[in-house]
Order: sequence, then structure tokens, then C-alpha cells
Amino acid sequence: MATFKAPQTHQEFMTEYPRTTADSLAGQMLRHYWHPVCFSRDLKDIPYGVRLLGEDLVAFRNTNGALGLVGRSCAHRAASLEYGQVTSEGLMCSYHGWTFNSEGRCVAMPLEPANCPLMKKASIPSYPVQEYGGVVWGYLGANKGNPPPLPKIDMLVRDDGELSMERGDIRDYTYLNWLENIADNGHVHVLHTLLPGVIPDDIRPYINTTVDPDWRNSKFSVFETNYGMKTVLVQNTADPNLKFVNTLSIVFPNCWRMANNGGIPPDWSNDRRESGGLLRIIDDTHFEVMRLSFVRQGNYRKGFRASDPKLDRSIKDRLRGTVEKKDYDYRQYPGWEGSTSLEDLIMQQSQGSPADREELLASSDAGVVRLRRIFRKCMEQVAAGEQPKAILNNDQGVIEADTFKGLVTVDELKVGPENMPSSRDGRGLLRDATGKLLFA
Amino acid sequence: MATFKAPQTHQEFMTEYPRTTADSLAGQMLRHYWHPVCFSRDLKDIPYGVRLLGEDLVAFRNTNGALGLVGRSCAHRAASLEYGQVTSEGLMCSYHGWTFNSEGRCVAMPLEPANCPLMKKASIPSYPVQEYGGVVWGYLGANKGNPPPLPKIDMLVRDDGELSMERGDIRDYTYLNWLENIADNGHVHVLHTLLPGVIPDDIRPYINTTVDPDWRNSKFSVFETNYGMKTVLVQNTADPNLKFVNTLSIVFPNCWRMANNGGIPPDWSNDRRESGGLLRIIDDTHFEVMRLSFVRQGNYRKGFRASDPKLDRSIKDRLRGTVEKKDYDYRQYPGWEGSTSLEDLIMQQSQGSPADREELLASSDAGVVRLRRIFRKCMEQVAAGEQPKAILNNDQGVIEADTFKGLVTVDELKVGPENMPSSRDGRGLLRDATGKLLFA
Amino acid sequence: MATFKAPQTHQEFMTEYPRTTADSLAGQMLRHYWHPVCFSRDLKDIPYGVRLLGEDLVAFRNTNGALGLVGRSCAHRAASLEYGQVTSEGLMCSYHGWTFNSEGRCVAMPLEPANCPLMKKASIPSYPVQEYGGVVWGYLGANKGNPPPLPKIDMLVRDDGELSMERGDIRDYTYLNWLENIADNGHVHVLHTLLPGVIPDDIRPYINTTVDPDWRNSKFSVFETNYGMKTVLVQNTADPNLKFVNTLSIVFPNCWRMANNGGIPPDWSNDRRESGGLLRIIDDTHFEVMRLSFVRQGNYRKGFRASDPKLDRSIKDRLRGTVEKKDYDYRQYPGWEGSTSLEDLIMQQSQGSPADREELLASSDAGVVRLRRIFRKCMEQVAAGEQPKAILNNDQGVIEADTFKGLVTVDELKVGPENMPSSRDGRGLLRDATGKLLFA
Repeated sequence: MATFKAPQTHQEFMTEYPRTTADSLAGQMLRHYWHPVCFSRDLKDIPYGVRLLGEDLVAFRNTNGALGLVGRSCAHRAASLEYGQVTSEGLMCSYHGWTFNSEGRCVAMPLEPANCPLMKKASIPSYPVQEYGGVVWGYLGANKGNPPPLPKIDMLVRDDGELSMERGDIRDYTYLNWLENIADNGHVHVLHTLLPGVIPDDIRPYINTTVDPDWRNSKFSVFETNYGMKTVLVQNTADPNLKFVNTLSIVFPNCWRMANNGGIPPDWSNDRRESGGLLRIIDDTHFEVMRLSFVRQGNYRKGFRASDPKLDRSIKDRLRGTVEKKDYDYRQYPGWEGSTSLEDLIMQQSQGSPADREELLASSDAGVVRLRRIFRKCMEQVAAGEQPKAILNNDQGVIEADTFKGLVTVDELKVGPENMPSSRDGRGLLRDATGKLLFA
Repeated sequence: MATFKAPQTHQEFMTEYPRTTADSLAGQMLRHYWHPVCFSRDLKDIPYGVRLLGEDLVAFRNTNGALGLVGRSCAHRAASLEYGQVTSEGLMCSYHGWTFNSEGRCVAMPLEPANCPLMKKASIPSYPVQEYGGVVWGYLGANKGNPPPLPKIDMLVRDDGELSMERGDIRDYTYLNWLENIADNGHVHVLHTLLPGVIPDDIRPYINTTVDPDWRNSKFSVFETNYGMKTVLVQNTADPNLKFVNTLSIVFPNCWRMANNGGIPPDWSNDRRESGGLLRIIDDTHFEVMRLSFVRQGNYRKGFRASDPKLDRSIKDRLRGTVEKKDYDYRQYPGWEGSTSLEDLIMQQSQGSPADREELLASSDAGVVRLRRIFRKCMEQVAAGEQPKAILNNDQGVIEADTFKGLVTVDELKVGPENMPSSRDGRGLLRDATGKLLFA
Repeated sequence: MATFKAPQTHQEFMTEYPRTTADSLAGQMLRHYWHPVCFSRDLKDIPYGVRLLGEDLVAFRNTNGALGLVGRSCAHRAASLEYGQVTSEGLMCSYHGWTFNSEGRCVAMPLEPANCPLMKKASIPSYPVQEYGGVVWGYLGANKGNPPPLPKIDMLVRDDGELSMERGDIRDYTYLNWLENIADNGHVHVLHTLLPGVIPDDIRPYINTTVDPDWRNSKFSVFETNYGMKTVLVQNTADPNLKFVNTLSIVFPNCWRMANNGGIPPDWSNDRRESGGLLRIIDDTHFEVMRLSFVRQGNYRKGFRASDPKLDRSIKDRLRGTVEKKDYDYRQYPGWEGSTSLEDLIMQQSQGSPADREELLASSDAGVVRLRRIFRKCMEQVAAGEQPKAILNNDQGVIEADTFKGLVTVDELKVGPENMPSSRDGRGLLRDATGKLLFA
């Protein structure tokens, strides 16, 4: 591994920041972490081609169940192993039958003499690969023999509801525009309120409509945590003893947690449906959004996006605006306002690369600033030969990146790196006057 | 602004000639002129993204009616203002609400404290923008406080007929190939006669079929004018006292005037329908054709292309050949002969950039040579720190780039920079023996 | 012509190997040979645009029948002659009428004075062009006055059956990946056996099912020949006196011969249908496959691809896998196994350029190694100012690149550069017990 110099200026940092390949400092830094590759359900009887951090790889599960994550090109004539055959031993190149196991070692050459000495020389790159909670993770770093612990996000193994996963929304810009958008609670209060929402009749009785939507009257706080970072927004209500709180978490460098929807004026919902996702960082200018949605009894289910593996790769088709297209709207995304996902896509895509962007950061960008500081510090640590920020599971073996959205009394308000009352406790679920769950 | 050296050789000129960006001499020269941005009707309640001379801009009309032409990226986080919201004050970025007025100054930051001092620092590029005759014009030059007069082409405000405007035909080559094609009357007599036309029965009685189509028997003259340049073609008829004349004008550097159609052998029409257009110079290799057609009482209206704003951007779909496609014609444009617009498109597109082209100019290229001389002289003037060719409206406040096509007697023939009998005078309209207009 | 240094290292060779343009050693070497341009039937009453060895050319047949192969750009204003008009004299540019004959000399300038002296200066590049067997061949080399003899492949003029030709399968990678695939018999025994074939009932009685499919029990031999190279595979049968033999030929540097299909376990056919084709080498990363299929009385015709000129350019649409697409198969080519052409396409395309590829060649790559040696030697000869390998027709005026697939007795087995019993002799055709041809 080459050595890299830490960025000395802001512009040097912004140029290095979006890089992902092994020949860059930022790419080396990212290689200290596990990255989502695909969902477990994606590995069936055919290989799964996947580009990760600028490397063309193939993931597979051999017929004995062992996982593999290897380079895309066969060691023989460089044909793509994405079209290889999954066998009991590993992955066979379809061209001439060379077969590689999960360690990348060649174990069969059917067109060469038995025990051909060349077999010892033939190998392809391979990387540690593990599964957790239905997600396949890969580690592309140098420390293959002793990779860091898997980031076991609690949401992936919650047993008190239904988790759905969607994949296939591939973006053509840096993943950092997505992450910064998550760290930036402020945009929700402008961008996502462009079209006034309608409070559904069946949850209207449970909405606190006195929440003050004015950002200037709210308090926005940002904290580095032992898994990444967290933002906390506290808004006033008519009751001085009652606050409306919304927290978001980022598990460094590729996961996020938030409330799925609701909570945007004027539909101030107390509904705490869990949401979030994982970013497959494809390369400097591409990433895949792997979405997670968690719903439990008592959540308002309407508008919930059902998970269906067949829907993978078609999510972009559903990123349509809800406004009727004007016949004089010649933009790439006509009638875009009203779809939160599309609103975010347009802003993020149009920002371009951090390296080329001219910016003027303000007080409400505190989350973005914090996120960059964490990236920059990690890059400096790697440049100095040190380990970057550790992402450690807690005593229960998971990462509690739990988020919270809903009403809390002033005395239970916790504005800090620790969590609000957990989303596990049933707080925020919609109940009738007797406490019975409304949506069961 | 950097200083630029004038091209010393023909190849240096041809390399500089198609450039449009601010970091080039040709681009700086172009910035001394007003450029068409869009039609007035394009500026409604949403912003209009437009690329001009290599700059990504957004045009808008705020809800109080004021026009703006500003840079595309928000000063805050660089999101695209093409997706901004038009307000009474100007243009609001949809991401965090920063709002910019027509001068590019930030006038609102809803997520920052009131009277945030940052607001004084936040600004985006803005350019002078004006309307004339239903066209929005922008000036991207250095002299923002005192731009040159708008080029008020008379055709845009003629009140003696019906003007239609079409937009949306975007080409993927330099605008100069279009302009040179206009300056080159000769090609009309080869390219546009590949398929013999048919004279419609209802105008056949009014056609002088004795016009001699042989270019070698015609006289082609080229003149620089105070608005640009003009070509005059004089053809013989059987009557020695009667000539058939066709003039074309170029208003430097981005407008042209001509007869719309007719006049090509064998359908020598005396019909003087006005035609022309404006070029939005997008960048070195792209431009948009903004077509103008002017028809008055007495013009033959059949085949007239009706203007419909909804047709914008679909013009290219109508660029189809009229010949039945042969099943062995594998070219990009099969069956292309017979559609004048498509014929021109294919020739212009296939020429490639002037910078790369090998040419051998001949006597019939006099118009092309003149056009290049004007461009070169203007570039030399700018390189010398002088003003390039002035485009001045006349005493009546307009540019009389009037063209003429039709029969004239020898004694009224004016072969020079001044105009033939004006198209306003009703000459050339089709009348019956009593002088009554035929198409009313 | 610049001089070029022969590659000194394997990497230098692999970098030079796929080059095709005149500014490269490999491109200069290729220019010592005739190249297929199109089929004779492609030259009708419109020009035929064709890119060859990185040069944009136009082929045409003037109305007197003479062929021409000239540069694409008109000498005047560089408009494309692909849209020119075929005349009795040659090819007329549609823009201004300049007309060029087959030697590239300008013979008409209708917009210039008669006998304009410029006409002597005006010319475009032209190349020798000839027809043989329904194929138009071009020679782009320096020795225009004395090009080498046409490579008269016998298959093109066989009169004992029906020859069909297909064109229009254009690939986006180097032609060498195709040629190396031909030289590599081994892949047939892995790649093309991924899906077990079914022996049709009507030829089942004529199949020798005792052929031993194990490559390790076969003998693979490679020979340089006076037209290029040849591979011979000999497989055992249950009868020690009977061998199953398959030969393939490459006519350097752009043609191949082989059996069309059959012969892959478990459908060991004794059917010797002739197949092969020509490669139009478009540029470093593109080529067109011009397929030849020869069928005579007695060949099994089912599944035979009928030739239809209208099918040209649609072959790629037919490159579809035969496997039902799995709904979790997100690859570019889902369900690809079972179509030999598609199997080859995927392997070749995914290999990328030889220049970038990491390889590990083994014993079964003997054909690939031989092919490269021929290329390298020819490149060295050209670098030394010598003629590269001569491709000479035989005494009968043709190239006998005849291939053979079928059963032979041990005593008639000829493993060497000469041919097996010729495909002309009727051996291998399917007959009943009385010797009567089964498919007549």
C-alpha cells in the first residue's frame, strides 16, 4: 500500500473527500470498514456481479453455502466470472472451467493435465465476506486476516416487527451527497414542505398540530457518537412541557437511520416508523441505495412501501413527481415536487462533486460540517498510519443507532449522543384513548 | 478577464473560430453581443434552465414580472436553481430556501437567524436580460452596466402579418456550420434540388418558369452590412428586363433572415414569405435553432408550419426524409432527400468542427469567406482591446435585415448592402389579374 | 509512413497487438492485407459508409458498375460522402455537387466556372477495391499500384451447395478476442457444453455416441499454414481404429473457417456443414462479423440460419439466451447459456483489451499462443521494413482453408498443416444404409 499525505487545505480535503479507489487516501480510509455488498437473498444459484469502491467483484454462495467475494476477471484469460458457474467448490469460469474457491485459489483446470503445477500459481483477488441480518458485507481492506467487527445495526435483527429491504436504486453521483443530505435536517423543513401534505383522516386525531414549524424557533444539535454521528432537532409545541423531537443517525461511513415519513408540517405525526438504509459505494461517482423499512404493530401502514424482491432495480421508475406535468416544463424531472425521494435525488444530483462545488456554509449546516470533520479526521489518521474511527457493537453485540421522532416531555428530553426513549418501547405508536394499538 | 492573442494563421483562426466559452478569444468576442435565451412565453411560473456560451444559467420571471438570468448553482450548497421556486422577490433554491433576486443577491435565508450577516456575502452570477418582440435576450459580457443596444430585428415586431416562433431543435455541432450554410447560397442549387419539387396547381399560373437555374449564368454577390452581412443572387429570365433575385441576411453573430421556401427550381415562386431565426449558442458543439416564420395576407399558406408552443422540442422528430426508406439503406438518416431542413442538418453535422476540417474553398464560397472575415476581424479587435463590430438599430429603432426574393426589373435592381424593395411593400404577394390578393 | 519499433517485451506486444490505425505498427502491418468491406449486394444505388482500420470510408458502385472506396469527407467543405449521389462518373457530394471518381479525383464542380483550375487540386483519398465471391475487399496499404493477390477463400466460390452470408453483427471490442476464440478449441468443450444439447431424433441413428468428450484424453495440435494457421483436435471413440476429428482454420488476419455446429457432446454429429466468416476490422475496439454458412445436399438443415439481406444488422437481436430468465438475474445478458454465439460474445466482450488484461496461459492455449506469434512476427517484419507473412492462393487460384469435422480411420488421419479429406468429397454427409443422402 502506498502512503498518502493528509489534505492540508479545505480544497485539498474536498478534492480527496469523494474518492473511493485504492489509489487514494479516502479510498484507503474507506477500506478500514465493512461495506454492504447485496442482500443475502441475492445470492442464489448464479453469481452476483458487484462493483464496490471502484473494484469489479463477484459475490456468490457456493452450493455448500459458503460465501465468496472475488475479483471479476478470471486469472486465465480474463473472462468475467459474473457469468461463471456456482459449484460445490466455488465459482467456475464458464470459458475454460477454471474454478476458484472463496479464498480465490484455483481448484480445477479441466483442460489441463491433472495436478497441473500452474494451478498453484493461478488465483484471483478475494475478500472477507460475512452476512448479518440478511445483508452480505464485504471487507476490502489490507487486514484480511483480522478485519474489524461487523457493524451489527440493531434494525437488521429487530424481532418486534416487519423489516423490508429494497435494492437497485443506483445513483450517478457521490454517496457523500446522500450522506450530507441525511446530516442536514434543515432541508426537510424547506425542500420537503414545498407541497402541502394532507393529514389522513384516520390519524388526524392523533396529531399534535401545535408544533411550531419555524426552524428559527427550533434547536438543532449535532453529536459525534461511537458509531458515527447523530442529529437532534427539538421543536416547541403549545404545551411548554411538551417538545417534538426528531433524531437521525449515521453509522460511519455507509449507513443511516431516520423516521420513514410523517413529521413534516402540517402533518406532524407522532408515528415512529423506523427507516434507514445502507449505501453500497460503487465508485467515486456512483452508489446504490439499499433501503430498510421497519414497521411494527401500531404503526400507521398506509403508504408503506411493501418489500418485494422483484421490485429491486425498478425503484427509480417509481421516483416520479406527484405534481401534474405542465406542458411547458422541459426539465429533466418535470412535476417533481411532492415526492420526497425525488426531491432529494434532484438536489443531490445537481450538487455535483464536492471537489468542484463552490459553497457557503451557514449555521444550519452544522451536521454537514460534523460529517466532514469525521471524514477528515479519519483520513488524517490513515495518512498517519493509524486506525480511523472504530465502529464497535455494544455489549449486546449490536449498534444502537436507534432514532426517535415524536413528542417527549421536557424532563425526558435527552439532547446528546445517547438515544431518546427507544423506538423499541412502543412510544409513538398510535393508540386509542384506552391505550389500545390503533393499527394492528 | 484574461487577454488573448489574435490568431496568426488560418489554422489558428479555424481552431479559435468555434469557441464559445469565456476562457477563449472567440468566446470573449461573442460576449460583446446580446444572445437569444428563450421566448418570452417560456418564462412562466417555473424557472427555465438554459446553457449559453458554455455557461449553465437559469432564466426566470418573478411573480412581479421582473426578469432574471442567473447562474445555475445556488451559492449555498450548489443545488440547481433550475428546480428553484419563482417568488415575488426572485428565485428561491428549493433545497434550503436561499432566495436570489435578479441581480443575484441573496435576499432570504429561512434557516438562518434573521439578519444573518452571511446574507451580504451570498450571491450568484447574474446577467442583464431584456425582452424584445417576444424573445428574451441575455448579455454575458463584461460591460454589465452599459451593454450594447438590443438587436431589434424588425421581423419580430412587424404588424402586417402573423409571426410564429418555434424552439427546441438542438443540434450537436457548432453553430458556425449553420451560419456558414446560410451565407452559402450555392448549396441551395445543388442540395435542395436533389428531389424535383412539384409546383402546386393553385400557384402555377403565377410562376415565372423561364428563370435560368444554372448557377454559372447567375451573379452571386456578398456584402458586409451595418448589422452583419448579406448575399444577393441574381438569375436571368427569358425577359432581359426581368431578373429573379434572392437575398439573405445574417445579423452578426446569431440571427439570419431568408425566404422560407419556394424559389428553388423548378418551382420558381414569386412568393416572398419571410423566414429566419435566432441561434442560441449553447457551447462549442451545441446550439438551438429558434425559428421565425412571418406570413401576411396574400402569402401562399399551404405547407406553412403552424406555430404551437407545445411543438417546441419536437421539431427534430419532424426532420424526416420524404423519400421512402430503401431496405438496404443502413445510414443514420435513410431516405433523407426532399426535406430541406434534414438535408441541411446532415451536411452541417457531417462537416465536423472547423478546427478539424480539411477544406478547399472555391469562388462560390464567397459568402463563407466573408462571414469568416467578419468573425476574424472582430476577434482581432477584441484581442487588441477594442470593441468588435457594432450592431446598431436604425433611426426607426430596428434592424432592417429585410430579405427579398422575387422578380424585379433591371432598373430597380439594387445589388449592394441596401435592401431590394422591402418585403413590407406587398411586392411578391400572389395576386390575380385585377391585383387582388389571392390568399387572403 | 513513419517507422515503428518492434515490441521488445510481452507487455509492449500486448499493447501494440490490438491497434489498427495507420499511426501504429500493428495498423501498418494490417495494411499489408486485403480486408472485407461489405458484400457485393450492399453496393446499389446509394453509397455505403464503412469504417475500416480506423478510417471513415465510403464504398460505392457507380452507375457504370465500377467500384470505388474513398475517404468519407468531401474535399470541398468536408460534408459526408456517405450521403453523396452515385453517378455514372463516380460519387457526387450532395452539398455542392463536387464529384469524385474511383481514383478520388474531382471530375465535376457545377458551382464553379467550367474548367476551373481548382479541379486539378481537388481530390479525396481512394483505395484499391475488388470483388470476389460476393464480397467487396479493400486494400488500405501503401503499395496501391501493386497490392497483394486477393485472398480467394474457396468457400466463397464453392458450387456444390448453397452459400449464405450475413452481416451487421458489430461488436464493441477488439477483433482479436474473436480470432483468439477461434484459435482456442478448448473453450468449446467447456463453454458450449454448459447446457446439455438434445440429439434430434432424425439424426440420432447417425451419431457416434462413443466419442470420448474428455479433453485430457484428446490430442490438440496447432500448425502455421501458408494462409494462416490451423488447429486439429483428435478424440477417441470406442473403436480404436476410428477417431473423431475437428479442424479449424484462420486465414490471416481476418477470416476463419470451422464447422457450423454439431459435434459438441453429447450430440457428436458427423455432419460437416461448412461455416466461417470474415471480420471487418472497424477500429481498435470494434469489428463486424460477416458470417458465411455453406450447406450442401445431405447436410442436416434444421436450425440452419437462412440468409436474408434484410436480416443484416439485426443479428444482435437474435443473440438471446435460450434459458428462461430468472427474475433475480440482473446481469446484462440474463439466461445466456445455450446460445453458442451469445456464449462467445459474453466471454470475448468481458475479456477487455489485450493491452489491459492479466492472463495466465496454459497448455490448452496453444492455438492462442500460435496466433500471437504470427501477429508478432508480422509486426517485427514490418518494423524491419520487410513484407509480413504472404497469403497466397494455390495453383487453382484459391485458398484451401477447408476444415473437417467427423470420423476418420486412423490410417487416413492427417495431423498437420495439410487438410483432412476435403469437405468437398461428401464425407460426413448423413446417408442411409444404402449410401443415399438423407437430407436432399
